[in-house]
Amino acid sequence: MAKIKMAGLQVKVHGKREQNLAQLAEILARPELKDVDFVTLPEMFNCPYKASNFPVYAEEEGGPCWKECSRLAAEHKIYLSAGSMPERDGEGKIYNTAYVFDREGRQIAKHRKAHLFDIDVAGGQSFKESDTLTAGETTTVFDTEFGRMGLCVCYDFRFPEGPRLMAQEGAKVIIVPAAFNMTTGPAHWETMFRQRAVDNQVYTVGTAPARDLSGCYISWGHSMIASPWGNVVMQMDEKEDVRVTEIDLAQVEQVREELPLMAHRRQDLYQVTRLK
Amino acid sequence: MAKIKMAGLQVKVHGKREQNLAQLAEILARPELKDVDFVTLPEMFNCPYKASNFPVYAEEEGGPCWKECSRLAAEHKIYLSAGSMPERDGEGKIYNTAYVFDREGRQIAKHRKAHLFDIDVAGGQSFKESDTLTAGETTTVFDTEFGRMGLCVCYDFRFPEGPRLMAQEGAKVIIVPAAFNMTTGPAHWETMFRQRAVDNQVYTVGTAPARDLSGCYISWGHSMIASPWGNVVMQMDEKEDVRVTEIDLAQVEQVREELPLMAHRRQDLYQVTRLK
Repeated sequence: MAKIKMAGLQVKVHGKREQNLAQLAEILARPELKDVDFVTLPEMFNCPYKASNFPVYAEEEGGPCWKECSRLAAEHKIYLSAGSMPERDGEGKIYNTAYVFDREGRQIAKHRKAHLFDIDVAGGQSFKESDTLTAGETTTVFDTEFGRMGLCVCYDFRFPEGPRLMAQEGAKVIIVPAAFNMTTGPAHWETMFRQRAVDNQVYTVGTAPARDLSGCYISWGHSMIASPWGNVVMQMDEKEDVRVTEIDLAQVEQVREELPLMAHRRQDLYQVTRLK
Repeated sequence: MAKIKMAGLQVKVHGKREQNLAQLAEILARPELKDVDFVTLPEMFNCPYKASNFPVYAEEEGGPCWKECSRLAAEHKIYLSAGSMPERDGEGKIYNTAYVFDREGRQIAKHRKAHLFDIDVAGGQSFKESDTLTAGETTTVFDTEFGRMGLCVCYDFRFPEGPRLMAQEGAKVIIVPAAFNMTTGPAHWETMFRQRAVDNQVYTVGTAPARDLSGCYISWGHSMIASPWGNVVMQMDEKEDVRVTEIDLAQVEQVREELPLMAHRRQDLYQVTRLK
């Protein structure tokens, strides 16, 4: 079971919640997705990316959008990384939450974005997630029939400690629903996915929304997969696109044998430790 | 004192020790290097890169090559990162050691390569430093009139923990004498220098030997400097070259203000700790 047929869905995010779910159902039913194993969606795929939208679109775990994603995963017998969506907890706090469902529609992973995106580049992008969101409190790995994977949301992936912990704990693939913008995208997106892959000798999988120039947040797009050797296995441009890519986890083993970075870490000199 | 005039010396490494030192003296005396602050040399700049050469070329700290580098730093009133050279300790062990001298010729930093380069890529590069070298036992930072810097040697820089520790301890520039090869160079060199710079919001400075197709190790060359925003500020090709580049440490502060990655680390979730 070393090979995984991945499908990345670089979709536009519509203002109406139902439209995003209908779009997902339509794409999953396409013949070219018939045999895929693992489908990945973008960050906030059901809510136009804007701090003031998050409380409006938020639902609790098990809410209508969660239910439809679970149902679709089971219907198509796929793993579904349901991007991320705004989640409201019992106390009314809002999170940027990624869920993963298995082939039976069971939730097998949940990650609340732990690093909130507050940025203010002179002449470039400004955004303040912390205006409405609460940060998650953990680094997340989960198990599949293909082995262990890591899960984080966009800005989380900026911090090398999380991916390192995931790899240390056995992840061979890291799934990242994300939405870089027109400032950070061209500057950092591809390099980050490639270098995290090389450093940790894993596949990295980034899925972003398609660019929508009429939207409230202009996404860089460029959903991509990098191999454990740091090659770009697949990269889209900025437009709506659905791309099926087979990855082979045997490559993780091969690269780790040829260039044994993971084995050559000097754990007597430094350590990356998980505190939560 | 935020601006530093750096000079990278991408030189060929000759078989005769004296020739490498004469070459260094000649270059440092050139008019275009008159006002530089900080000169960087490649890994093993005085010893053709081959495991069996290291014991033959090794000298103790304070030996003839060390002395000449110290003298040249004082003569030209420069900081000199004297690349690395094989060092023999009192017990006869050999290390791949980087020294830095200040404007008075005093040794202000010493780093013994802590990760030995043992690699065996199918159809590509094979090398085994550990055949003759002993690994160093620490991560290294040092202080200059411009502020704190980090120092490591080539393969050390592959491991994100070291650069992270350097940045956590206040480094704003990381100096890396290195010698990637024709397999790892095109695949990983530039991405690594750019991503380490972005992650840690520092300047990264890589200096490699010029390519010598008649040599025992074919260097990728491509000495470069990346900015805290991940831009390539300077990059050479594979040929002999001397390049003067001014870097501005005010950019470190600016980038850390606009995109506060260092401040946004979640030290309650994970930590990178120095053990030695």
